[in-house]
Amino acid sequence: MRPTTSFIFDLDGTLTDSVYQNVAAWKEALDSENIPLAMWRIHRKIGMSGGLMLKSLSRETGLNITEEQADRLSEIHDQAYARLQHQIIALPGALKLLNTLTDEKLKWCIATSGGVETAKINLQALELEFDEVEIITRDDVNHGKPDPDLFLASANRMGVPIEQCLVVGDAIWDMLAARRAKATGIGVLSGGYDIGELERAGALRVYEDALDLLDHLDEIASRP
Amino acid sequence: MRPTTSFIFDLDGTLTDSVYQNVAAWKEALDSENIPLAMWRIHRKIGMSGGLMLKSLSRETGLNITEEQADRLSEIHDQAYARLQHQIIALPGALKLLNTLTDEKLKWCIATSGGVETAKINLQALELEFDEVEIITRDDVNHGKPDPDLFLASANRMGVPIEQCLVVGDAIWDMLAARRAKATGIGVLSGGYDIGELERAGALRVYEDALDLLDHLDEIASRP
Repeated sequence: MRPTTSFIFDLDGTLTDSVYQNVAAWKEALDSENIPLAMWRIHRKIGMSGGLMLKSLSRETGLNITEEQADRLSEIHDQAYARLQHQIIALPGALKLLNTLTDEKLKWCIATSGGVETAKINLQALELEFDEVEIITRDDVNHGKPDPDLFLASANRMGVPIEQCLVVGDAIWDMLAARRAKATGIGVLSGGYDIGELERAGALRVYEDALDLLDHLDEIASRP
Repeated sequence: MRPTTSFIFDLDGTLTDSVYQNVAAWKEALDSENIPLAMWRIHRKIGMSGGLMLKSLSRETGLNITEEQADRLSEIHDQAYARLQHQIIALPGALKLLNTLTDEKLKWCIATSGGVETAKINLQALELEFDEVEIITRDDVNHGKPDPDLFLASANRMGVPIEQCLVVGDAIWDMLAARRAKATGIGVLSGGYDIGELERAGALRVYEDALDLLDHLDEIASRP
């Protein structure tokens, strides 16, 4: 029996053009708590779970971020992100790619480090309903990316072996988590990372965006 | 006689944390003219002259951007950027690096693809006065980066040979223009490009930011 590939998609920066709004929202939160951090350093942490992001930030800057402060930062971030939601649109080819997979009877699931509320904002840009798609959010698992939990839960939801899953993501955290889960990482540049960063983190192939991936689907997907 | 190194600094993303605001301002301008472009594609063009950015954008998307429309886009960008100026701060180590060079009698000059008004917003974040520093803006030359004109004019302003200049920048356009001018490119990650992108564009060395460069100044600067 030939293996059938199933797809696990990151959401932010992979299906929706929302990474830069996410960066701006974290910047606003950190500024409000007088934690100075350059934008590019925030950008490089997007896609991690919020908790892990603050923990690694805490370690790297030597700042002591208390649990109470972390909660406050998360809350301000969520408010700022919601305020920017009118700017968020689908990335080129995202919906067409999902529909093509459905037509070709290839399973797909969305796996996001964000919580349900943030996910709903992004799904809206894709004109998808939360209850009508397979999706695993940060609220469903113990650990976000780069831990493998989200992807393992996604494979489980689809009822397929994780080894036959392709994880499509824009961040090195997607690629690391894919490797840790024994899935195959496929990078997209649409979150603002470079091809080199994604390849160094274990991507098998890197495409510009969902549209470019769709144009090269035969390179990675099993045949119908 | 031993050669003495002189420094040419890009401004946006190299000395000030302003690239992401610049991306947001261009996004707002393009949206207002119904030109759909993903944020990461705008990010990759920051640091080019605005005119060249629109020209290359026009070529890549197949859209016909008229001169009149280009003027309108520039104007909306400038307004949006001015509105975001309260967010713009100096990058870590930027001012300390400039002061160290001055103390060590190493010449430096700023070279920016932006116009005078945008430059003034960024200089304010550095607590520098436009009239008190050596600076070449887009308004002083025929062509912005990646043409070599800005850097050639900077060397001329300092009265030093361009071959002895180190060009410090965050964008591949800085590195390309440095090579084209026969200067030496030094990359910084503070604009959100990856080390690989900067090295592929010709950077001799890449540092995290101005502070990291200052910590490793002996690697690239001539001795006092």
